[in-house]
Amino acid sequence: MLNEIWLPTLNTNTPQEGFELAVKLSRLAVMVSQSSDDNRHGARPAQPNDASQLIGAAHVIALNFQTIAAANDWWRQPSSNTE
Amino acid sequence: MLNEIWLPTLNTNTPQEGFELAVKLSRLAVMVSQSSDDNRHGARPAQPNDASQLIGAAHVIALNFQTIAAANDWWRQPSSNTE
Amino acid sequence: MLNEIWLPTLNTNTPQEGFELAVKLSRLAVMVSQSSDDNRHGARPAQPNDASQLIGAAHVIALNFQTIAAANDWWRQPSSNTE
Amino acid sequence: MLNEIWLPTLNTNTPQEGFELAVKLSRLAVMVSQSSDDNRHGARPAQPNDASQLIGAAHVIALNFQTIAAANDWWRQPSSNTE
Amino acid sequence: MLNEIWLPTLNTNTPQEGFELAVKLSRLAVMVSQSSDDNRHGARPAQPNDASQLIGAAHVIALNFQTIAAANDWWRQPSSNTE
Amino acid sequence: MLNEIWLPTLNTNTPQEGFELAVKLSRLAVMVSQSSDDNRHGARPAQPNDASQLIGAAHVIALNFQTIAAANDWWRQPSSNTE
Repeated sequence: MLNEIWLPTLNTNTPQEGFELAVKLSRLAVMVSQSSDDNRHGARPAQPNDASQLIGAAHVIALNFQTIAAANDWWRQPSSNTE
Repeated sequence: MLNEIWLPTLNTNTPQEGFELAVKLSRLAVMVSQSSDDNRHGARPAQPNDASQLIGAAHVIALNFQTIAAANDWWRQPSSNTE
Repeated sequence: MLNEIWLPTLNTNTPQEGFELAVKLSRLAVMVSQSSDDNRHGARPAQPNDASQLIGAAHVIALNFQTIAAANDWWRQPSSNTE
Repeated sequence: MLNEIWLPTLNTNTPQEGFELAVKLSRLAVMVSQSSDDNRHGARPAQPNDASQLIGAAHVIALNFQTIAAANDWWRQPSSNTE
Repeated sequence: MLNEIWLPTLNTNTPQEGFELAVKLSRLAVMVSQSSDDNRHGARPAQPNDASQLIGAAHVIALNFQTIAAANDWWRQPSSNTE
Repeated sequence: MLNEIWLPTLNTNTPQEGFELAVKLSRLAVMVSQSSDDNRHGARPAQPNDASQLIGAAHVIALNFQTIAAANDWWRQPSSNTE
């Protein structure tokens, strides 16, 4: 897909970093869906532009955040917050 | 994303505080989706304005509440309710 | 959000009470989404009025019921059914 | 909501009975959403009538089936199949 | 619902068979939603016919696959692959 | 469905490979939904072409990624990253 390592781990130090990773994953999934035809390469990413689409995007973020939160055992153990 | 710590933990004292955090997270996700283009900064957040959008927003809240509830082990252990 | 305690616990005695709590949570989430602008206060809650919206509302209920069922360990242990 | 006990347990003997319970729960959730205004009482339940709505209904069933499957520990232990 | 046993177990030998079962469950849920009125019997099943509906159908499959994957403990233990 | 083994395992070495598998599964689910009528065989796969559909596709990917992440125990244990 992409010839580089862009997701080495789901671990983050804090819930906030986990949320930011969820946003990143969500945008990437939109991009991947868009570029599945070769002739789409180079097109600018789809941009949600009305309330329904923004809510849909928030839904994807929430789902990815759920995955990342589980991966981090919901940040129950105190960790060194480096931010 | 935002240059401050706004989500230090997913822990809340009560389910109700957890629900309120879910609402906060959901609004933030909508805002983040909206502001992903630089030229959107400053725009007022999308506002759900019909029943379908409100139900969609409630869906996002439900998903975030599910994550937060798991993070708090569903508040099964009695905690000091500070509210 | 609301200056009272309306969700002290996710525990219910029976699946049926859990379902009813899920309905309550879902309606509340719709209300909260609706009232996020100050000028919406006092408006009557959105009412699903076609099949798509009713199915969407049922979806939110199903998601909240999933959360509540987990909170109650799926009511696997017999409890004193007070209803 | 309803003045009778219609959901005493989430336990079923087989996945198939669990699926049927999921269908029942999903229909009930649609009905409950519909009847939340008093003046809706007596109206006939919403009926999905196009492919999008049928898929939406299937989505709600899938979510409830997920909950019920977890409640039954995914029917991993052989049980006396009474059907 | 149907007077035969069509879902005796959620267990499958491989993820692939689990995916196929998820497809079967999803189609069945659409059919069940469609046939809930008696006068629908015999109608041909709804067929997704545009990209949005196909994505919706894929969503239902993904949800059922999640359930089935959990039921099979994500096929972590090597099993005799009979296919 | 397909007369070959295309999903022998849900295990991947890294979250990134898991994400790529989630994309693959999601596309397959769309294809399977499309080809459920015999007369659809050979049609080119549905291609999301607006923001709502791209977000919907991202949603399916997020759900499949959640399943795959669970299957890999969220890649918590360091594994030999072969990529």
